[in-house]
Amino acid sequence: MLIPTIPTTHNPALEASLDRAINNKTKPLGSLGTLETLAKQIGLIQQTHALSISQSAILVFAADHGVVAEGISAFPQDVTWQMVENFLARGAAINVFANQNDCALHVIDAGVNHDFGPRDGLVDRKLAHGTQNFAQEAAMSRATCEAALDAGMAIAASLPGNVVGFGEMGIGNTTAAAALMHKLTGIPVADCVGAGTGLSADGVLHKQRVIEAAVAKHTDAIAPIDVLATFGGLEIAMMAGAMLKAAQLRKVLLIDGFIVTSALLVAARMQPAILEYCVFSHCSNEQGHQKMLQALNAQPLLNLGLRLGEGTGCALALPLLHAAVNFVNQMATFESAQVSEKTE
Amino acid sequence: MLIPTIPTTHNPALEASLDRAINNKTKPLGSLGTLETLAKQIGLIQQTHALSISQSAILVFAADHGVVAEGISAFPQDVTWQMVENFLARGAAINVFANQNDCALHVIDAGVNHDFGPRDGLVDRKLAHGTQNFAQEAAMSRATCEAALDAGMAIAASLPGNVVGFGEMGIGNTTAAAALMHKLTGIPVADCVGAGTGLSADGVLHKQRVIEAAVAKHTDAIAPIDVLATFGGLEIAMMAGAMLKAAQLRKVLLIDGFIVTSALLVAARMQPAILEYCVFSHCSNEQGHQKMLQALNAQPLLNLGLRLGEGTGCALALPLLHAAVNFVNQMATFESAQVSEKTE
Repeated sequence: MLIPTIPTTHNPALEASLDRAINNKTKPLGSLGTLETLAKQIGLIQQTHALSISQSAILVFAADHGVVAEGISAFPQDVTWQMVENFLARGAAINVFANQNDCALHVIDAGVNHDFGPRDGLVDRKLAHGTQNFAQEAAMSRATCEAALDAGMAIAASLPGNVVGFGEMGIGNTTAAAALMHKLTGIPVADCVGAGTGLSADGVLHKQRVIEAAVAKHTDAIAPIDVLATFGGLEIAMMAGAMLKAAQLRKVLLIDGFIVTSALLVAARMQPAILEYCVFSHCSNEQGHQKMLQALNAQPLLNLGLRLGEGTGCALALPLLHAAVNFVNQMATFESAQVSEKTE
Repeated sequence: MLIPTIPTTHNPALEASLDRAINNKTKPLGSLGTLETLAKQIGLIQQTHALSISQSAILVFAADHGVVAEGISAFPQDVTWQMVENFLARGAAINVFANQNDCALHVIDAGVNHDFGPRDGLVDRKLAHGTQNFAQEAAMSRATCEAALDAGMAIAASLPGNVVGFGEMGIGNTTAAAALMHKLTGIPVADCVGAGTGLSADGVLHKQRVIEAAVAKHTDAIAPIDVLATFGGLEIAMMAGAMLKAAQLRKVLLIDGFIVTSALLVAARMQPAILEYCVFSHCSNEQGHQKMLQALNAQPLLNLGLRLGEGTGCALALPLLHAAVNFVNQMATFESAQVSEKTE
């Protein structure tokens, strides 16, 4: 396995010419706020001022987590495969929002504890029937972790478009994500754990204790890939691989909530330049996501109190990416529209 | 002129049944955050749980302001008509964003200081070539103000759809809006004024002084309609009329930034129930808008540092309204999808 090398988007000449293009549009200077920052970022990712969004896609990676044996989730493990069935039947929130925003949706079985058999619309990359319980042993072997990263890279390489959103489904995966967050940022576990799908305060405390005990046990996990193998999930590892490859291919990466951001944390520890390719779709209501975003110096587009996952934040933010690209491509300039400029 | 009476949307039975419909969808309870609040509000406005968005439209009201004679804007007054031309030529930000989101755009000349002649795509409701300079005299007579409210009501009554966004164009209108805000909320003028299209700090201070002097002069303006006539603009008054009528007709009102919210402030002082019909699209970067929203107890959907006006925030927020309606109409329930419910 070879981690993709990700080039910086830094390009002062292009940056200056993007600034000029944006500032000449018929609007007060800077008045499109975050959309201007976003347009510039997209231009730098694509290394052009002919910005475009083509064939955007959301990848939803699903897998199960051995750590559910510790009673850290409000929902039973079966919900993972049941929700995959719901995705295939187009009944989930991500189906509705992806469809609304003309975004392709790919559902990937990275390691669900259920045999689906060959199914239309399901990408079968199952590496195991879920991870091991990291409260007792590493979630996966280093070899399985590398296989997951590889599979993710191959998926990203096969996508035709230039915008990729990331989503996930996996009962128990906020526990894995919180453990990754703690290990990779040093933020106390208490600040990393949250209610997930709806734990009580006691449930959150128990989750915290499970993670703290596991962290104390696995002191040998230091390198990002070892942290990922020890505490991660198959969907998280595969997603991290897909992110790395997508950034290398200069796609825009749309980052969803807490779990997706934890996958990015791993990827960013391997290749820090990946962050230049990331658009943070929203700040989740899951306790810890805000701190995770701060640790990445990330500015989320939306703040809607979402805590659903599945890539829903990505789908909801997509129209803002279109708006950023469209204003650069379609608005008149002061000169072309013969509008007077500022006098003061 | 008769101000429309606006009924409350309050309906406990419908509210309970909307809650049930939302909570039975295949997602953790409350996990769609603000979209759930929004869906419920739309249901109450429409008095049904068969939510819909049909033929959404944005009304952009344009007019000029006599107070520009005091040097309170960074751009010359001609920019008002030049931007109206830009709207008609489809070169402005609002054209791009309305088009992207399949939203009709109606441009209304409420009182621009320019003769356009009959023009395709321009709704001519010109009541004057701009207002008088409120630093010296009332911006408009009570009769003109009533005519503007009436014209706005007629425009709203003629719209076919059930969602109306409001936008504006008028050099100098942040000064009018700040004066309205101060008079109707009691917030100090210094906290109401901002940079508008791009004033320097000195320019903002001058704007503050102009408003303070005018407020000291026009002590007789107390009733909302008198405050509107004295300090408002023709676009603001016409917009307030359109808002009142649209709410009476149970349309969803999409509120844009600082100036549009000032028109709503006036309308809300006349008919407080109008606020139940309002979706606040964004919090503007214009100093004062946040405080104005707080005074209305309003939660904006977006926070993108926009300060452009034209209704751009409305167009950008529209996909979130569609998302709110779509998840209620299209998502599977736990029962229909056979997904297990919470166990903890």
